[in-house]
Amino acid sequence: MSALRGNCLVGQSGGPTAVINASICGAIQEAAKHPEIRGIYGARHGILGVLKEDLVDLRQEDPEEIELLKCTPAAALGSIRHKLPDADADSSEYERIFEVFQAHDIRYFLYAGGNDSMDTINKIAAYAARVGYDLRAVGIPKTVDNDLAGIDHCPGYGSVAKHIAAITMGVGLDMMSVHLSDPVIILEVMGRNAGWMAASSALARRQEGDAPNLIYVPEAPWRRERFLEDVRACHAKYGWCFIAASVGTKDESGQYLATQKGEFATDAFGHVQLGGVGPFLEHLVRTELGLKTRPIRMGPAERIAMHFASLTDRDEAYDLGAFAVRSALDGATAKMASLTRVSNDPYRCELILADLEAVANEEKLIPRDWLNPAGNDVTQEFLDYARPLIQGEVPTPIEGGLPRYARLRGVPVERKLPAWER
Amino acid sequence: MSALRGNCLVGQSGGPTAVINASICGAIQEAAKHPEIRGIYGARHGILGVLKEDLVDLRQEDPEEIELLKCTPAAALGSIRHKLPDADADSSEYERIFEVFQAHDIRYFLYAGGNDSMDTINKIAAYAARVGYDLRAVGIPKTVDNDLAGIDHCPGYGSVAKHIAAITMGVGLDMMSVHLSDPVIILEVMGRNAGWMAASSALARRQEGDAPNLIYVPEAPWRRERFLEDVRACHAKYGWCFIAASVGTKDESGQYLATQKGEFATDAFGHVQLGGVGPFLEHLVRTELGLKTRPIRMGPAERIAMHFASLTDRDEAYDLGAFAVRSALDGATAKMASLTRVSNDPYRCELILADLEAVANEEKLIPRDWLNPAGNDVTQEFLDYARPLIQGEVPTPIEGGLPRYARLRGVPVERKLPAWER
Repeated sequence: MSALRGNCLVGQSGGPTAVINASICGAIQEAAKHPEIRGIYGARHGILGVLKEDLVDLRQEDPEEIELLKCTPAAALGSIRHKLPDADADSSEYERIFEVFQAHDIRYFLYAGGNDSMDTINKIAAYAARVGYDLRAVGIPKTVDNDLAGIDHCPGYGSVAKHIAAITMGVGLDMMSVHLSDPVIILEVMGRNAGWMAASSALARRQEGDAPNLIYVPEAPWRRERFLEDVRACHAKYGWCFIAASVGTKDESGQYLATQKGEFATDAFGHVQLGGVGPFLEHLVRTELGLKTRPIRMGPAERIAMHFASLTDRDEAYDLGAFAVRSALDGATAKMASLTRVSNDPYRCELILADLEAVANEEKLIPRDWLNPAGNDVTQEFLDYARPLIQGEVPTPIEGGLPRYARLRGVPVERKLPAWER
Repeated sequence: MSALRGNCLVGQSGGPTAVINASICGAIQEAAKHPEIRGIYGARHGILGVLKEDLVDLRQEDPEEIELLKCTPAAALGSIRHKLPDADADSSEYERIFEVFQAHDIRYFLYAGGNDSMDTINKIAAYAARVGYDLRAVGIPKTVDNDLAGIDHCPGYGSVAKHIAAITMGVGLDMMSVHLSDPVIILEVMGRNAGWMAASSALARRQEGDAPNLIYVPEAPWRRERFLEDVRACHAKYGWCFIAASVGTKDESGQYLATQKGEFATDAFGHVQLGGVGPFLEHLVRTELGLKTRPIRMGPAERIAMHFASLTDRDEAYDLGAFAVRSALDGATAKMASLTRVSNDPYRCELILADLEAVANEEKLIPRDWLNPAGNDVTQEFLDYARPLIQGEVPTPIEGGLPRYARLRGVPVERKLPAWER
């Protein structure tokens, strides 16, 4: 394989995770080991940074700060949601991207993200082939949603699962403490189409009656009468009920609970509130069963808990970043660094390359038989799958009682092109 | 002082904290050292457990599980909100309480709680004196609200402050990562009358522009036009805005934002939603400034984070529980175990006794001069006060990737009285 010489560009895209910076750290530290790679640049806010020629020189960063990326949540280079158009329909963005690549001799493009980001890399790799630009474009998977195809599980998921389970365990104990006055908890969890995150709350259970008592995910239809009966029965049995529900929980007609008309909370202008599966269920439990409920909506607070992140997840995220660079150096392009599980006990995953074609724009949902027939809980198969992913805790340096996260200087790479006209 | 012999009863009351069990652990382990104390009992759900003669024998618990209470959040004995009536107006509950005390030879009553719980102890101690029942009733302070008078700061506050600051730091980085699409975060924080919890988010800041950018607490009136201008200016300067707001934030007329008519979200039945300062501010920012916002409501998830609790807080909570028992043995009654800060650098607090009379039903608010003149931030005085309270992390045993919390067996103490007729 040819030793392609040139500069390396890394970027981040989509919703952040606790460990996406660990992947970037793996890529940067690996890239620094190889003389073929000269400049190591970061794109600010992902592909938007490429389009705007807004690049930073990562070789100018203090190596200790780069090392701290291993235990820094969120996206240190900035993230973006941007879907590239079909190149045949509109090639203007591609032309600009390759002008920037050419101007900065970018030959290695490592992009960490989810489904849409893999689509971006796939399109860029295809365009590179079409115009004969020698580029190695490799994806680094990340998403708290765990909905990426072509991989056993997605970096970022283990940490969010661990955090949600820890929150469920603690809030569950809290609920049991105060259940005489506050008997029902509704934990609204991110996840529009895939319920992996809400399902992870099940890892918190240690014994009969423990939280969560009911779990609702988009993969199984929610039924109003069944739900009310389940909550009533749970409360009658234990005196409490802890409900974990995905934001994207849907009824039998496929409609999101969060946007149900009539019963759902609206603001004074009649706007339906978004993300409101919690308020919707709260209202139902309160009015139909007369039970006091507390809805919890952590939103982005779910995905940033490096203070209780999974070491397994973090290490895999780092390894995938480094593996993506090694694979690119070996000639890979239009691939995603991926994981295949070779053993569950002891848990062991191997690094492999997945074809982007098979990954981009696919969504991996929870298999229906990993949910119980009633559609209000997970099965042992899910627990066996998820449990290894939350093992170990990331040692985080502490300063003033709080985590000491990386602070990059962000030294700009000198611009060589006119500003992007868009 | 006489060596009063008899049994000891511990109980928990009010909203749980991460470290209220540590206080109970301190009381139990201290009580076990003193031969004057025979039985060590727990009241299930606080004073309600006394009224119902629902007691558990804590000497029957595995000492390792008692030890684990040091790092178990929520109230392991169960909590309750129950205000005793004035004894002159209605003495029936007091009569029942002292029947139970007499039947079980309770001579030491240790009660962990906040303002209302200190009121409970105060009334019970006064009633004991009136009827000539030899009882040592001592309060152990706890409240995440930090609104208890007669103490430098309240156990439970340091841990919730550390957790809120860590969440703010992480969500702040997340917001900076994605601010091109989601520029405004509204973190709704518990605290009806006192803003100590929302204020603790300020501990997260490390440099200019860091979250939180604006802080609203009940102690300073919120002004609509000023708020909109502050958010607009912050977004213009940084591209983002992180707002931490107490549930109990009030406008200039003293009305809670969460219950403002007209603009506030109502459900389909016209009910005003509770705890809605987040949705209220979100709606305002979205409609008046056109900025996308994400409200976060952690609710009880704020106060259960033993997975990132303050070791300083935990140790003080434990020490106060043990000190309460020692003080009772020395003859104290109608007192609260308390802390006085003798030095801030190095931080050092001493254990003292406070008069319950001066504590019960008082509320300690943030001093106005610890908030800036605009009423949208804290001052250095607040940070100097709060910073020492979040130092250190509690080493939590881990099992299966999650904290291994105590599980008490709850062996009932044999009932000696007819059931309580209420």
